[in-house]
Formats: sequence, C-alpha cells, structure tokens
Amino acid sequence: MSQYDDDHFHDQCGVFGVFGDPEAANLTYLGLHSLQHRGQEAAGIASTDGRQLFVHKASGLVQDIFTNDVIAQLPGTRAIGHVRYSTAGGSHLKNAQPIAVDYRDGSIAVGHNGNLTNAEQLRAELEELGSIFQTTSDTEVVVHLIARSQKTTLQDKIIDALRRVEGAYSMLFLTPDALIAVRDPWGFRPLCLGTCKDGFVFSSEPPAFDLIAAEYVRDLEPGEMVVVDSAGLRTLKPFESKPSKMCIFEHVYFARPDSKFGGVVVYEARKRLGRMLADEQGIAADVVMPVPDSGVAAALGYAERSGIPFELGLIRSHYVGRTFIEPSASIRHFGVRLKLSPVRACIAGKRVVVVDDSIVRGTTSRKIVKMLRDAGAKEVHMRISSPPTRWPCFYGIDTPSRSELIASSHTPAEIAKYITSDTLGYLSVEGLHRAVRGDSEPATSGYCDACFTGKYPVPFAGEQENGPPTGKHLPIIGF
Amino acid sequence: MSQYDDDHFHDQCGVFGVFGDPEAANLTYLGLHSLQHRGQEAAGIASTDGRQLFVHKASGLVQDIFTNDVIAQLPGTRAIGHVRYSTAGGSHLKNAQPIAVDYRDGSIAVGHNGNLTNAEQLRAELEELGSIFQTTSDTEVVVHLIARSQKTTLQDKIIDALRRVEGAYSMLFLTPDALIAVRDPWGFRPLCLGTCKDGFVFSSEPPAFDLIAAEYVRDLEPGEMVVVDSAGLRTLKPFESKPSKMCIFEHVYFARPDSKFGGVVVYEARKRLGRMLADEQGIAADVVMPVPDSGVAAALGYAERSGIPFELGLIRSHYVGRTFIEPSASIRHFGVRLKLSPVRACIAGKRVVVVDDSIVRGTTSRKIVKMLRDAGAKEVHMRISSPPTRWPCFYGIDTPSRSELIASSHTPAEIAKYITSDTLGYLSVEGLHRAVRGDSEPATSGYCDACFTGKYPVPFAGEQENGPPTGKHLPIIGF
Amino acid sequence: MSQYDDDHFHDQCGVFGVFGDPEAANLTYLGLHSLQHRGQEAAGIASTDGRQLFVHKASGLVQDIFTNDVIAQLPGTRAIGHVRYSTAGGSHLKNAQPIAVDYRDGSIAVGHNGNLTNAEQLRAELEELGSIFQTTSDTEVVVHLIARSQKTTLQDKIIDALRRVEGAYSMLFLTPDALIAVRDPWGFRPLCLGTCKDGFVFSSEPPAFDLIAAEYVRDLEPGEMVVVDSAGLRTLKPFESKPSKMCIFEHVYFARPDSKFGGVVVYEARKRLGRMLADEQGIAADVVMPVPDSGVAAALGYAERSGIPFELGLIRSHYVGRTFIEPSASIRHFGVRLKLSPVRACIAGKRVVVVDDSIVRGTTSRKIVKMLRDAGAKEVHMRISSPPTRWPCFYGIDTPSRSELIASSHTPAEIAKYITSDTLGYLSVEGLHRAVRGDSEPATSGYCDACFTGKYPVPFAGEQENGPPTGKHLPIIGF
Amino acid sequence: MSQYDDDHFHDQCGVFGVFGDPEAANLTYLGLHSLQHRGQEAAGIASTDGRQLFVHKASGLVQDIFTNDVIAQLPGTRAIGHVRYSTAGGSHLKNAQPIAVDYRDGSIAVGHNGNLTNAEQLRAELEELGSIFQTTSDTEVVVHLIARSQKTTLQDKIIDALRRVEGAYSMLFLTPDALIAVRDPWGFRPLCLGTCKDGFVFSSEPPAFDLIAAEYVRDLEPGEMVVVDSAGLRTLKPFESKPSKMCIFEHVYFARPDSKFGGVVVYEARKRLGRMLADEQGIAADVVMPVPDSGVAAALGYAERSGIPFELGLIRSHYVGRTFIEPSASIRHFGVRLKLSPVRACIAGKRVVVVDDSIVRGTTSRKIVKMLRDAGAKEVHMRISSPPTRWPCFYGIDTPSRSELIASSHTPAEIAKYITSDTLGYLSVEGLHRAVRGDSEPATSGYCDACFTGKYPVPFAGEQENGPPTGKHLPIIGF
Repeated sequence: MSQYDDDHFHDQCGVFGVFGDPEAANLTYLGLHSLQHRGQEAAGIASTDGRQLFVHKASGLVQDIFTNDVIAQLPGTRAIGHVRYSTAGGSHLKNAQPIAVDYRDGSIAVGHNGNLTNAEQLRAELEELGSIFQTTSDTEVVVHLIARSQKTTLQDKIIDALRRVEGAYSMLFLTPDALIAVRDPWGFRPLCLGTCKDGFVFSSEPPAFDLIAAEYVRDLEPGEMVVVDSAGLRTLKPFESKPSKMCIFEHVYFARPDSKFGGVVVYEARKRLGRMLADEQGIAADVVMPVPDSGVAAALGYAERSGIPFELGLIRSHYVGRTFIEPSASIRHFGVRLKLSPVRACIAGKRVVVVDDSIVRGTTSRKIVKMLRDAGAKEVHMRISSPPTRWPCFYGIDTPSRSELIASSHTPAEIAKYITSDTLGYLSVEGLHRAVRGDSEPATSGYCDACFTGKYPVPFAGEQENGPPTGKHLPIIGF
Repeated sequence: MSQYDDDHFHDQCGVFGVFGDPEAANLTYLGLHSLQHRGQEAAGIASTDGRQLFVHKASGLVQDIFTNDVIAQLPGTRAIGHVRYSTAGGSHLKNAQPIAVDYRDGSIAVGHNGNLTNAEQLRAELEELGSIFQTTSDTEVVVHLIARSQKTTLQDKIIDALRRVEGAYSMLFLTPDALIAVRDPWGFRPLCLGTCKDGFVFSSEPPAFDLIAAEYVRDLEPGEMVVVDSAGLRTLKPFESKPSKMCIFEHVYFARPDSKFGGVVVYEARKRLGRMLADEQGIAADVVMPVPDSGVAAALGYAERSGIPFELGLIRSHYVGRTFIEPSASIRHFGVRLKLSPVRACIAGKRVVVVDDSIVRGTTSRKIVKMLRDAGAKEVHMRISSPPTRWPCFYGIDTPSRSELIASSHTPAEIAKYITSDTLGYLSVEGLHRAVRGDSEPATSGYCDACFTGKYPVPFAGEQENGPPTGKHLPIIGF
Repeated sequence: MSQYDDDHFHDQCGVFGVFGDPEAANLTYLGLHSLQHRGQEAAGIASTDGRQLFVHKASGLVQDIFTNDVIAQLPGTRAIGHVRYSTAGGSHLKNAQPIAVDYRDGSIAVGHNGNLTNAEQLRAELEELGSIFQTTSDTEVVVHLIARSQKTTLQDKIIDALRRVEGAYSMLFLTPDALIAVRDPWGFRPLCLGTCKDGFVFSSEPPAFDLIAAEYVRDLEPGEMVVVDSAGLRTLKPFESKPSKMCIFEHVYFARPDSKFGGVVVYEARKRLGRMLADEQGIAADVVMPVPDSGVAAALGYAERSGIPFELGLIRSHYVGRTFIEPSASIRHFGVRLKLSPVRACIAGKRVVVVDDSIVRGTTSRKIVKMLRDAGAKEVHMRISSPPTRWPCFYGIDTPSRSELIASSHTPAEIAKYITSDTLGYLSVEGLHRAVRGDSEPATSGYCDACFTGKYPVPFAGEQENGPPTGKHLPIIGF
Repeated sequence: MSQYDDDHFHDQCGVFGVFGDPEAANLTYLGLHSLQHRGQEAAGIASTDGRQLFVHKASGLVQDIFTNDVIAQLPGTRAIGHVRYSTAGGSHLKNAQPIAVDYRDGSIAVGHNGNLTNAEQLRAELEELGSIFQTTSDTEVVVHLIARSQKTTLQDKIIDALRRVEGAYSMLFLTPDALIAVRDPWGFRPLCLGTCKDGFVFSSEPPAFDLIAAEYVRDLEPGEMVVVDSAGLRTLKPFESKPSKMCIFEHVYFARPDSKFGGVVVYEARKRLGRMLADEQGIAADVVMPVPDSGVAAALGYAERSGIPFELGLIRSHYVGRTFIEPSASIRHFGVRLKLSPVRACIAGKRVVVVDDSIVRGTTSRKIVKMLRDAGAKEVHMRISSPPTRWPCFYGIDTPSRSELIASSHTPAEIAKYITSDTLGYLSVEGLHRAVRGDSEPATSGYCDACFTGKYPVPFAGEQENGPPTGKHLPIIGF
C-alpha cells in the first residue's frame, strides 16, 4: 500500500552476512527475509566457495527472488546479502546490491547500508582518472577506490578507500578469502555481530540471528572494522574517532520492535516514548489506539501511563499489495481503507487518542482522522511519538525534500488543522532522547537527530538545501 | 506460513455481490479483497451487462488475479465474486467459483459459502438422469437442479432446487437479469445486505461494505432469499423454518474483528471471550500476550479483567510467503520463527499468559511455548478463548478428521503436557455462548457449536465418522 | 504473424491418442507437437491410469504448455490430446479440449476435429431437458447425448449419441477403460490408425507416428468406429453409409507435406497441382518462386512442368511472433516484411511467376506483389494451385464469411487488378480433383470441394448465408 | 532444437543502429529482429534523447524482450542494439550488450560483433591500473581504454582505444551526442551503412534495412570509422591498412540468404557453391535435396548444374522450441525428428544426394543419413558446400575446440563412415573462394578462411591450441 498511503521515512537498506556455514546462501536469504522491512524494492546475495564469487540480484521481495533453484546456484560457506528500498519510479535493478566486480586482485562484492555525502566529488575525481561507472549508486565509488589503492592487502585497501569517503556506511565486503564488516565512525546505521555454529554472522538488526538460530554477540562499534577469514576473526579501529551518532529514528520507526541496539530494546524504547508522550501531551480521552503496526508499542505506553483504555480500533490488512484500481472518486480515502479499517464499536461516541510514530506529509494522518470521524469518534487527538520531522536525511534514509515535509513549514497547530484532528501533540526532542535512552544506556551514547533538529553531524556543501547533493551529469537509466 | 504452522480451522469461502453500479466488477474485486481471509486459494468474478455473463477465475490472491486488464474484461453493472480456501495439495482451478453455465433459460453463475451434506446422493441421482459434471464441487449440484426444475421463473427454479439440498449455504446467483442471494434455513454461514449509491450489495461480512463506501443494512435472515432485478429488491422466506444455528466459530476466529453479525461486534465478542476466560481460567502471572493477530482482542479482554499487564510480546512478520527452504534440522521451530518472533524483554524472567483462539493439532502451540521458554519465560500459561475443538465441521469449514483433532482424544492436562505449557485453560461451552451473546443479542439467537459438542444440527449418515461423506467414483483431476 | 498477414483458411483442430504405452502423455504431447500446424491457440491432454482421468488444458503452443511438471501430472498408459485454432480475439480457454466430464458411468474425455452442423438445435433440445453447458463448443453436445443415452455400454452410448449429430467429426474418446476413435460417415476430416510398441495410436495425420516411432497402419474409413480396450482393438461401421467427402483442402494447404491420406502423399499431390497449374495457366517467364512454405511443392511442380527455373526468391523468417509494434505508416507492407523478405538478385529485371496455394481476402497477395515489384520484378504473374475460394466451410475449417472472400464477388481479372499482378491464374475444379487423385487413388474416392463450388454434402438451414449457423442466446465468456 | 541437433558454427552477435528517427528504438528493435539469426541468447537496446542514455537488456528472443512498455522506456531519436549468442549453459545476462557506462565525459554505450584476441592481456594491464570489471566480456576492455584515453574528443578517444586492441570488431558506439560505427582493419565481421528518412542506419546485414524501409548505401570498409552527430556524417580511416579478411563463413552459412556483402548476394554465392560442388563432387543420383533451411540454395545450385531433380524431401518444423522431454531410448534420433521429417515418397528407393553447408561434430549428419535410410533411400550421398572445418575461430564465431571438430582428426572417408553415408564430398578451399567471388567481386577482395585452413590473419600466443586464450582468474558469475 506504500503507493497510496505510506507516509513514512524509509530505511534505504539492510545487510546480512555469513562466514562459515555450508548453507551460507540459504541462511543469508533467511536473514534478508528478517530484514525485509528495511527494503522491499530489490535484493541480492553474493556467495563464494573460496575460489570465485556467485551473485544473484533482482527486483522484488526476498521470498520471491530466492527460489530453491536460485539458492542452489549460490554455493559456498560464505555469503553476504542486501535488501534495498528506492524512491525512484523505475525498477533500477542495476543499482541493486551487492555490487560485485573484478579488479586487479580478484573479485569483490559489497553491500552498503547508508549514504556517502561526498560520493559525487569522488566519482568526478575517479572519472577524471579514467574510471567508468556502471551504476548511479554511491557505493560504486568505494570499489573503485579499493581497486586503485596502492596498499598491498585487502584490509588496507578497504581502509584506504574508506578514509576517503564521508557520511554513513555500514558495509559488508566479500571476497573469495574474507568477509569484512565496517561501520562508519559516527555509527549512523546499525550493524551487529553474531556467531553461528561454526562461524560468524553479521546483520543490520539482531532478530535476523534468532531466525537462523545464531547468537547475537554485540553491535559493531562506530568506526570498527571486523575481518573474518581462515585465520579467524580480528577487529580494528582504523578511523579517526567521532562522537557516536546512531540514527535515533531506528528506535522511533525503522527497526523491528524485537530489535536491540546498544542494550536498548526497541519495543521498550517505543513504550517509553509513549509514556513520555502521555506526560508531555496528555489529554482527557476515552480510548487510546495505535496506527498499526508502527504505533502499537507507543500507544501501549501512552495507555499505561495515562490510564486510558487501550484498544486495537484500527485493523490492518494482511493482504495489501500493489495493483489496486482506484474506484470512482466517490469512495473517500480509498487507499487508506485498503490498509486500515476501523472497529466502530471502539470508536463511536468516544474521545479517541490515536498514536502514530511520525507525520511526514500529513496526507495519511488526514485520512486516518477522517476514518475515525466517519466511524463516529466524538473527538480525535493525534499524538506523535517523536518530534516534528523538519529536515531531510543525508545518511541513508529516504526522505522527501524539505518542502514536502509538512512540519518544515507549518506549526503543530497548523498541521492539526490540516489533518483535521481536534488536537495534535508531538514529543519534544529532549523527551525523545530521554525516552530512548531510558536507564539502560550510558548517558555518553549519542544519537543523530538531524531530521528533527537540522544539526547534521557531517557537514557538506549545500546542506541547507532541500535535497541531497546531486551530480552534474544525467545517469544511464537501465533495467 | 500456513504451510508450516497455521494450526487453525479455515473458512472455506467468502462471497460478494453488486447490483447497480457501473464499476460492479471493480467493487466486487475490492469486496473480495476485504474477504481475502476467508479463502486464499482461488478467486473469481462473474459480471453481466444485462445480455451475457463474463467470468474470470484463477488460483491465487485476489490482488494478483484481478489486474486492470482482467477487470476491463468484466463489464456491466452487476457482478458476484467468490474467494476459496482448499485443503487439497493441487490447485484444482476447475473447482474455483463462481460456477457459470448455460442452460435452457440462458446463463447463470453461482458463488457458494457452505457445504451441502447430501450433495453426493443428489449428484448420483442427477447423473442417473443424464447430467454431466465438470467439477467435484457440491455447488454444481445446485445448477443442475435449477436447470432441471419444472418451475417457470428463475426465482421458483432456485427455490425448487434449494428445497432438495441440505446443509449450509450462503449463495449468490447472477443472471443477465437478476442477482439472487440466499441463506440456508439454519443460517450457518453469514450473509449481509447493504446499499451502494444506486444499488445493492451483498457480502459474507460487513467490512467489505465500508471499503467501497456502501452502507450495511442488515444480515439476511436464516432461510431468507433476496431477489434484486430491474423491478427493485424483494425478499422471500420460501423454506421451512429452522432454529438459528450460525457458526459460532466466526466469532472465535474466522471473521474479521471489525465485522458484526446479528448486532454482535466480533472485536467486542472476542474481548468478552477473553474476560470470560480470565474469570474461568485465571492464574497469577506477570504479563498477558496474544498469539497475533487472532488472539489480540481476547488477550486484551483477559488483561483488562485480570489486571495483568498486556504486551505484544510476539511480533508477526508481514512478509511470510510460500517458498521457504527449510535450513538444516539444527534450527528449531523454524517455521513458526518465520511467522512470529519474541520480544525477549517482555518475556524473560516473567510468568507469561499467552492467549490463542483455539488448538487444532497442537503443533504450533507447542512451538510457541518453546519459543517463549527460549526467550526466558519463567512460566508459560496457555489460555484458549474457546472450548476444546473435538469434532469436524460438515457445514463449510475446513477441519481435519477427528483423529487429528488433539482434543478429541486428549484431556486438557494431556494437551498441556504435549505443548509443554505449565498450565492450559480452555473456555467452557457455556462461557463461550454467554460471552459471544453479551447483552447485545436476544437470548433466542442460537449458534452451531458442533465442532465443540458434536451436536450436529443437520443429521446425516455417518456423522460419527472421521470425515465428511464422500462419493463412490474417482473424479477427473484437471487444472 | 497470422495477426498481420496470414491470409489462409485454417484447420480448426488436430487430435492424437495413445493406448498402451507407459509414456502415453509424453507421446501424446509429441504427437500434438507434430500436429501443431492444425491449431496454435490452445492444447490439452487427458490421460488415465485405468481408475480416473487427468486433464491439462491451456492457451498457447504445445511446447510451452506441456512442461516436465505438467507431463508428470498426467499419469497412465492411455491418453488423448487436442490442438485448437480459434478465430475469436479472446483466449477462450474454456473451449479448449479435451472436454472431460463426470456422468453416470464415470468419467469421459473427448477431443474433436470437425464441426457439427446441427449442434445448436441439439443444444436447445438438451437444455429443454435440463442439461447445462459449460462451453460454447459444439462438442459438448456429444457428451450430453452420451450421458443421456439409454444404451447400456459405452460403445452403444457413443453410437447412439453420434447418430443424432450431423456434420464433420473425427473424434477420440477416453475413459478409464477404453479409447474410442470415430470418423464421420463422409470422412470430412482425416483420422489415422497406427501401432506403437505394445499398443495403438491415433492421429489426424501420419507424420505424428513417425516422430514417436509408431507405425502407420491405415486411415480410418468414413463412418468407422475403432474401440481399443483391455480386450484389444475392434472395429465397427455403425452409421449409415455416405459418399466419401474428405476435405480436399487438406491436400491444397492444411496438411503437412509429409502426410499421406488414402494413399495420396500430400507433397506429391501438391507437385501435381503445380504441374496441372502450369498446364492450365502457363505463361512466359524467367523464374518460378513459391510463397513459402505452403507454395513450395506446387512451385516445384510448376517449374518442372514449365521448364522455367525455380528459385527461393522469398525468404521466410523463423522468428515471427505476436508482439510487434507497427512503426510509422511510412513503412509499407510492414507485416508481410516481417514474415517474408525478397532476394533481389532472383527478382530484379525478371518476369516472375509466384505460386501460392490460395487467396482468401487478397490482402497478403497484394503485399507480396508489391514486394516483388519493389525488388525490381519486370512482371509478376500470380498462380494459385487451387480454384477460387468462394464459399465458407461448415465442416471444421475456419473461414471468413462469404463477403470477405474476395473470389465470392470478384472475377480473377478483378482480383488480379486488386492485387496488382500482371496476370492471375487459378487451377480449375476439375484440374484440382485430377491432380490430387493422381494415379495413386481409386476413381471412386471423393472429396468435399464446397469451399470452391458451394456444393455442401450435408445440407442445413441457411447454408447460402454468409456464416455458419449461430444460436439464439449469448454465451458466457470466461477465461 | 539447437539443444539437440544443431551441429553448426554460430555467429556470436549482430548489431544495429539508428541516428535521426523519432522511432529509433522501435526501428532498432525491428532491425534486431531481422538479425535474430545472429544471436538468440540475449538482446539489448540503448537509446538517447540527446541528454542521457536509456538501456534495456534481457535474455531471450528480441520479440519477447521488447514489448510496447519496454520500447516506450527507450526514448529519443538515436539508438543502437545488439543480439548475442552464447555457448555457456547459464544465462549470463550481465554479458549482454550494449554495455553502457558513465565515465569522465558522460555516458557511452557499445555493441560489438567480433572478438578481441588480446583482451585478456589488456584487461590485466587495466586492472593493474585500478580498473574494475563488471563483466567477463572482451568488449568491456574497450570502454575502459576510452575512459582512460588522454585524447580530448570522443572520436580520438575511440581511435586511441581501438589502436590498442587486436582481433575482430564491428562496433557501434552511442553517446548522447553521437553514433560511431567502426569496422576492424581486416573487416572480419560485416557492417553496413544505410539511410532512413531523415537519418542514418547501421546493420550487420542489409536486409534489416529493407524491413524498416531504409536504403542500403554500402558496406563499411575494413578499418573505416563513421561518425554521425548533429554535424552530419563523416568518415575516417584511422587505422593501419590490412589485407581484407572478411569471414567467408558468412557466405557459407551465417548470413541471411537475402544479404549482400561487397556486391556478393549470399543466395547467389550459395547457389554457386552448389554448382561448384556438383562439378567437384558429382555423382550419379536420382534426387538432390537440401538439409533445410541452410542447404537450400546450395542444393538448388547442385541440382541445376548436375541436372538431377531437386526435391524438398526433408521438411523443417516451424515449432521447435526448447523444452522437450526425450521419450524412452527406443525412439531413435528423437531430436532430429523434432526438427526434420522425411517425405518418404521423395526418398524411398532412390539414390539421394543430400546437401548441407558444413559438418562440425558429425552427430546431426549421422542422424540425417539414418533418417533418409529409414525412409527407404537406396543410396545416400552427403555433399557439403564448404571444405572440412578443421580449426576453431578466434574472431567472433562460436566454434567447439579442435578436438570436437570431426574434420580436424578424420579424413572425409572416415567421416563418411561415421555418418554412414555411401559417399561424402566436400568443396575444395579453392572452389570455395572461386564460388563465393563469382564474377561480381574484384579479385583483390580477400576472405578469412582460417576455420578451413588454420591460416589465422591475426597471430596470437597459443593459436595452435584447442581453444581461445583464457585468463588467469575466475570470473564472478552472476545473473
């Protein structure tokens, strides 16, 4: 239903890797399935038998791409995988990852979650030196830098290359000999380490480990590089130290509720966000209900703190796909109706607090308020378990330009008017940080909150503009 | 994930119809989408422009079958549709509905939710008279009886035919001239009437009306026939009156939570089931959590009545499909892990009450208990918001044979041992009826509870046997 | 390319059957492949293991429909198959054959090549008695008549049913016990008997036997019924004797050149047609060339008799499919160019005799003449190896209505003008019969030449009209 | 049927390009259709609107890949296309062409017919300098060389790059500004220039021009580069002059019969080959027949010169695809039977001369001889319209290794014994050259005949070995 009503920021990627299991590709496929919420447009797996790389990438969902036949063509005990979300209308399969290339020292594949803020400049430099590009992806810059590095070992070439790039990257590299995981010095995007029977696993989020009966060990530290090869696992901190700036929106919306980052369980963080929201934006009401599924935990927290009964008054369909023909205009809010339907008995005649995680453009919120009013709500109070989203993200999240972010140019009161709710309450930035941190995390840990505050940890030319930096020449469009 | 772990009874069908809208096929498609939970194997739509019938049926989900191109080939202002669930391994497309045929008076299509208990006998009689059958469906018997009826009007032919059949049927008939809806005299399966802009709509459940901006009017009464044609709508009660016996399992599990039958809102009935369950089977615990999504409302009721905090401690995946390759045996309970994942923080060290709607074979419950224990639960108390399911259904629900129903041969204590829960508590039959009825329904309304009690409202030869009656000759198998 | 330029009559079907081989379905599939030229719209196979029937039908080419997986689901040592051509725009899968039904005595499947001229009357009668129809096919009438027959054996029921029908039929019936082949008393459509290792085979044309290493035995005689079951093979002549009227157009165009009917080899018959054409319509020229592939043998005969050199001056593409986007109108005769291309060196500056088998609407001939002139032909003389086609066929051939047959309303001279050839010469009806017969066939054998002469062997109401008889009610259109 | 019995050398590619037509992509698609015989594995088109490049590549046939929707996504007035044949079992889509990349000066796409003999060495050098490769194709070397060239104009960069490569190349380059066509100095593979309404067209063979109503102008000369841009068309000869060495096998088998190279019409050349073959290898016989379709013209020439009657005694199926299940071993020569079937009447009791263009492994010839004997041939005399093929090709033709070429290790007499023909006659190398040349070509024109003689015009290390040069590292395998 994203084509109709999904008014959210979107994670652009998830990565997963296995070193040392005879079912490496199958486990990677299952890991990607567990990370499917981080990217539904395309997916890919690269595996190796120690001699060469095998790659399969395609558009679509993980479970549709990786049939038995495909998995069978990805042999070996090591594999990395990638899921990708993309805003563009076309399928752009060529930008799917892992990107796999041949260079001087053999073959290398890379999967990247994040966004490099100086990719365009580096690309121009590389092209000046004679490099050719097959994709429009920022990630391709990295493999060119590796191929051109004068260092002698793979590990040093990768370090050499990554010292040139800026921005957000949680990356997995695969060669016939090694699997290398790296998290950028700010730690924007998550990346976790685990162990399986005879080897090691990496994932954007820990629940992927549960699915394949692997054990979560720890998050990679910001700036950490982990190398796994026949000599075992070793860890390095080759980059200049930076203040920790993990994306706080992972806790608000992106991550699975059963995920855990730096000791903070996402489900619990969301409940704390809901409790804090009740403290900051309490109001008299008869019922609290979430916008499912993303608002559930926050609504539970809100209900618990406020003492107002919790109901699942909006039901989410399990069967929402991509091909609906919108009927005549007389059917109001058709799109959101396909996804959500109201339980009138929970709503009619009641003062309703409806809890969502964020408002991007406001279009869906407006439809939900109307749906509640059509179902007989006496009052509708929208509560958002995060502050107003006013700034685009340049570190790996798909966000609209500033002008499309309703909160960048409107006050909460104006937004309430637009979405037609009786009241609208956002969480404060301070409340957000306090709620996420809870008491389980050291006060030293820090989060990037640039989408709320505009305080970008990594500066770049034109950061005040509406969109991310773009290059000078138009790309090849292929599929 | 049904192929791995869905241990439920299943509704075998849903029906939807529109009379008097230029977008009849599109609205029917949306209505079927809203009824998708009643049958995922195949779907079909028949439409008419007043001169001839147009039909499309295929295997798969509604949204995959009915593309723009297909809808465009289903013209006219009237249409009926059908979704179908089937137990058989093969696709058996030929049994998909609506069944559409030509007979003496022209063309007729029929969609059927239910099961005819004397279909085999009637089929044998009809074949003796020279009828040929193209499907193995009980529904085909009805069109033969209509075609052979000596009555003169369509309405009388249908009455004539249906007086011969026994069992459960909520049916929609479409001809170039009329749409006719019928509910059997016991009212086993639901069927609702609504109005759209310039016409009438019918649906197995009311939320389909909401989706297309139609208005719910009322349920058809047991034994009622509604005829809509160019003369408008008229209603008849042509069958011998019977005690009302609507399927109570619709309230327990089958129906959408936002549905309403006979004034009873399903979501509220389920909350009452949970409250009653807390009364009958209360236990000291730290947390109540549902098996999502079917157990959510009952768990909310249980938590509310018991005062134990409610948590969504089991997360359900949105991306569970059909093509998983099970990895090596070392991954325990792989199937259920694909569908559900635990939020350890809600579970570890706690006494957990987990609420589900029913236990059929017990295999999934066993996996869920293990999953909770693996996540650190101190105690696991399984609570079921209905009585033990001991008998197969012959009225339109797909149930395993008696020998596969764990409760037909085991006590709750034995089942608790099998599923490894510390305790197991079922609702009583009396509690079930009282909770469903609430105070919103007249005491005279009655429900079929044969799957719990073995008291079959419509008797038939061999009802004590393990399975439904079967015919003597092997069918043609086609696709 | 038929969608652009195939200006031919088309056979509507081919049938194939095997009794007594463990690979029955696979051999039937290969047999259908060999008969693919008789119908490209849909294909189907019914098989039996002696207990029940298995059926698969689909739209498309034989080789695309019958994958390994499909063949594996068609077990047993007996099978019948059918290929179908259809004029209608839609896919009309429901009219695909074999038609398989259940009736009183079990299951039966039938494949039919031909057309029943009294099907509509019979259908009306059957519907009056309460029969329902699932297809618009004339063939379905036969299974209803069988199901209603009061005779006691399958053989007698089939005879009983076929005595009621009129027109053209070469039919194969399959039940779990027997395979029965029948050819109508006039013998309009061909049907051949062969033997394979341990059993018997039937085919519309003999080359299908070669492919599967079966041996051709003989043609079925007009009015013959062959029954094969566990008792072996027996033959009957249950119908009133009629003068032999096999379709002469099988020799002109429909059949494969390597076929043989009644001792007449099609390739040789076509060469004799070409020689006769040279005798009747000789002209001074520099080169003789066929319209490939159907005109090749006749052109060889023409060249041989006339002494004018033969060249393959028109090349036929092997890759002509269905999805071309016609470019701007400036590209003349685009469609025919996709299919045929001229070898200028054979044409430029020459007087060209171009030999084709027939002209239906004249549109393609016109394009071919232009193509030859564009390639530099000094003169173009079109020669047709059959008489003018003036009448539609009601015996199983797809022909346009009379008004679309250019020869029904225009003289050869007028047609020559339309197609812009310098001259146009047709074979005479007498020449046609003499050439087909050659000296290899008894003078007593007769052919139906109604498409040339309008002399219809089986009379029917309205035969002088433009099209075949049609029924009163509009059919269900499904797919 | 290639999977069973196609015992031929295969052209590896065809290229087509349009500059200056609003339907550039559609015309390119049609051009590729006309070149489909040069490569059936994959096809691609790159187009440009003057600002950026658009690319689509896929596995399969041209008509299946380029649907209306795909063509609509290839806008602009300029386009190049490519069809590809490949021996490898996998689909290897990543090696499909045109290869399109971004480099310093923008985007460039290239389609290549031929093979570069020093690609591996150049690739190693480029990788040493930091280049990364996404394909295993020799063509990718060229774009890297262009990207690294120090020249300032595109034209000079391409010249600079091509001066480094050796071997065979007919190439089309497309940028947003220009279309550049180049033919290597030996002119191994063909490349033709034509004009369309407002622009220019290029094609591997002239008949593609006919299809789209373009006019053939001339072949590119060996070593010629043609640049078309907004300034019009200009031609250059930037490479060192070499003796002309066009592939003579284009005349023997690869090219369409309606093609023309250097004034020699392929159909006529083949007829001369047949006449020469009759002169050199005449024998008493009753009938001459070709192995269709490739042997038709030569057989006509043989029949004409020898005076022995010509017959199409072997019929080729139009419906041979890829998915046949071979039935039990008892069916002899199953594969070839699917493709060819004998007209017994032309064969039985006769001394048959059967004309084919070449014998590679001999397996198909053996089956054909058996088929003729099974059909009753008294004698079978195989005549080949070219000399024995003894050497692999390194200039763009897919040939087996030497050890698989039956003529590399066996005399004609031994081959005759293997294929079980009574006699076997090849054309002499001298006869081949004389027949191809005819009197229409200047005696100075030269042909590469290395596959017959082992005289390789471009020397390379290891040329006497069995296969083409291969690289040191294993490639990434993707799809």
